[in-house]
Amino acid sequence: MAHTFDVPRGLAGVIVTDTTIGDVRGREGFYHYRQYSAIDLARTRTLEDVWQLLLDGALPDRAGRTAFAAEIAPLRRIPDQLRPLLGPIARVSSPLEGLRTALSLAGSLHGTRPLMDISPEARRADALFACALTPTLLTALHRVRHGQLPIEPRDDLSYAANYLYMLTGTVPEEAHARAIESYLISTIDHGFNASTFTARVIASTGADLVACLVGAIGSLSGPLHGGAPSRALDTLDAIGTPDRIDPWIRERVLAGERIMGFGHPVYRTDDPRSLMLRDIAQGIGGGLVDFAVQVESRVLELLAELKPGRELFTNVEFYAGVVMELCGLPREMFTPTFASSRVIGWCANILEQAGDTKIIRPAARYVGAEPPVAVPVL
Amino acid sequence: MAHTFDVPRGLAGVIVTDTTIGDVRGREGFYHYRQYSAIDLARTRTLEDVWQLLLDGALPDRAGRTAFAAEIAPLRRIPDQLRPLLGPIARVSSPLEGLRTALSLAGSLHGTRPLMDISPEARRADALFACALTPTLLTALHRVRHGQLPIEPRDDLSYAANYLYMLTGTVPEEAHARAIESYLISTIDHGFNASTFTARVIASTGADLVACLVGAIGSLSGPLHGGAPSRALDTLDAIGTPDRIDPWIRERVLAGERIMGFGHPVYRTDDPRSLMLRDIAQGIGGGLVDFAVQVESRVLELLAELKPGRELFTNVEFYAGVVMELCGLPREMFTPTFASSRVIGWCANILEQAGDTKIIRPAARYVGAEPPVAVPVL
Repeated sequence: MAHTFDVPRGLAGVIVTDTTIGDVRGREGFYHYRQYSAIDLARTRTLEDVWQLLLDGALPDRAGRTAFAAEIAPLRRIPDQLRPLLGPIARVSSPLEGLRTALSLAGSLHGTRPLMDISPEARRADALFACALTPTLLTALHRVRHGQLPIEPRDDLSYAANYLYMLTGTVPEEAHARAIESYLISTIDHGFNASTFTARVIASTGADLVACLVGAIGSLSGPLHGGAPSRALDTLDAIGTPDRIDPWIRERVLAGERIMGFGHPVYRTDDPRSLMLRDIAQGIGGGLVDFAVQVESRVLELLAELKPGRELFTNVEFYAGVVMELCGLPREMFTPTFASSRVIGWCANILEQAGDTKIIRPAARYVGAEPPVAVPVL
Repeated sequence: MAHTFDVPRGLAGVIVTDTTIGDVRGREGFYHYRQYSAIDLARTRTLEDVWQLLLDGALPDRAGRTAFAAEIAPLRRIPDQLRPLLGPIARVSSPLEGLRTALSLAGSLHGTRPLMDISPEARRADALFACALTPTLLTALHRVRHGQLPIEPRDDLSYAANYLYMLTGTVPEEAHARAIESYLISTIDHGFNASTFTARVIASTGADLVACLVGAIGSLSGPLHGGAPSRALDTLDAIGTPDRIDPWIRERVLAGERIMGFGHPVYRTDDPRSLMLRDIAQGIGGGLVDFAVQVESRVLELLAELKPGRELFTNVEFYAGVVMELCGLPREMFTPTFASSRVIGWCANILEQAGDTKIIRPAARYVGAEPPVAVPVL
């Protein structure tokens, strides 16, 4: 090999690409999609608006919003040929595995073609197809897994209301739909995480969009990727009552365990998603929220006492779990729900990468026994 | 972000990891698996021996070879629950897409678990399952796609003979089986290519082995990854007769087109796989081989004349296509056949990566409009 470059482990800080999609500023507690604060978008816009911002680069006006809704409505429906396979897939697969398989097959049915062989318009059409179908697939797989029939999407409902409706069969309260919509918007993208990078590596080979997404789903399913929003809620359950907060937390921290829902690799201050989700949870209210706020406050005090200088703050997991629980989502659907919006961020990254013709192909250093050793005869 | 590092585009030459699996020496025209020349292994060993070398780190003795054969035999069979789905998958999928979907589902059926949650022995068992099943899946999907019934694997046949038998229903001539076996051994691994890197990125999140493979299959399907062995054969067809070699090649080269089967990003001398495959093809012989040798010789002369100093040599594609054609493989199965052995290389890399607890997570540089811009009200 002509020239090699030594860099930090895990490629930490190594710049792979320029992007105009967004960024995370860990010290400021700020992240953005294009030129807008992601939290401002989550508080004020519809998911479809932000989807357009990520894919097309700009927020829509009213006419653009209407046109987009008409464009995606038919794409939400599960293709007839796929329906008989949902049962066999759902019965043996976790929700993310089921999405991996079903989306792979749906891509073949749809006829997604190699990114490098098609126009930017055709790539965008493939992205709309995949992003529109993913929530329907996830909810259908969940229902079929539990012996229920899938529910058809309703075009008169907002994205999030439709998601909850397809999952439960009941049109949700407006507050719940809006809470989930804000959560989904806030999780569309978040810097150059491992699943986003996976999608871009596959895209750099010129492969089809679904090939990229299927790889990204695989990375998202990795325990080291982004955690699981249900774990923080499990912690609340395990603590149980206010008087048990101190002993439970002290015991875990002194045993060297991480407290789920606290600490983040990038944020050195409050995670802005956590602040928004706490507001949303308190807006809905109830005993779970009060307990969560109490636990959060005491955990932060205890972490400051037991791990001084570590700058451990509440992360997105903590209140994400609370909000999803309040809105009636089953815990096994917490991570899949995260995937249902993150697929939009992956697609934006795939479309951006497709504009680059350079394959992403780093190197390894061979450190084994020096070859060639004669092959022994057997 | 605290520290960032600028590196060449596409991470070219950036060292991601140490490895003991193998390496490619482009200037020497040499590549190796562990401490052995890959070509020596392809000429002298069985595929199963080399599979063990890649996965377990050492070539087996006779007892080890027998034990390994017994271990993988039952894993070759398609699980009963998967069989009814082969038709619906095969009818709408290209062979690699079909493998992507079917292997994803097979992983769920098998119960592959996150790499970071299981022992090295359990990871190895998952790798054996995936590598043993892949050839059966590929041949079954191909047959079902063409309206034929899948053929059960036969444990009395060598790996390659069984592969050809499952594809065609006929036990192949020994020379053909051995030719394909050498080809398959020679393509198990080849440095840190894009699909191998993809598998390792996903593995670094702690995800399950099949999640990694499904991503790698996606990268392999990318037109920029490794080319397609059938294209070189299409070139031979298009040239047709010896008198048309010169005008056909001159026209393409002067139009700036690449001649498929020539040139390699790493080798600056003969591709050792090409030399071996030419030997194998000439051992089998026939009009196609004579014509291919004639074309190769003239193309190399023309390229030296028309592109002086470019060091363009015959690559693996050229004679791989010829050998596979001679052995009766249909062209649409050329790339899938490549995948059927490369899956072993991917698994070796996944198992090696699973020993590292650092996630692979590089960075991007935001170059868009400066945020935050106030979100317009709609």
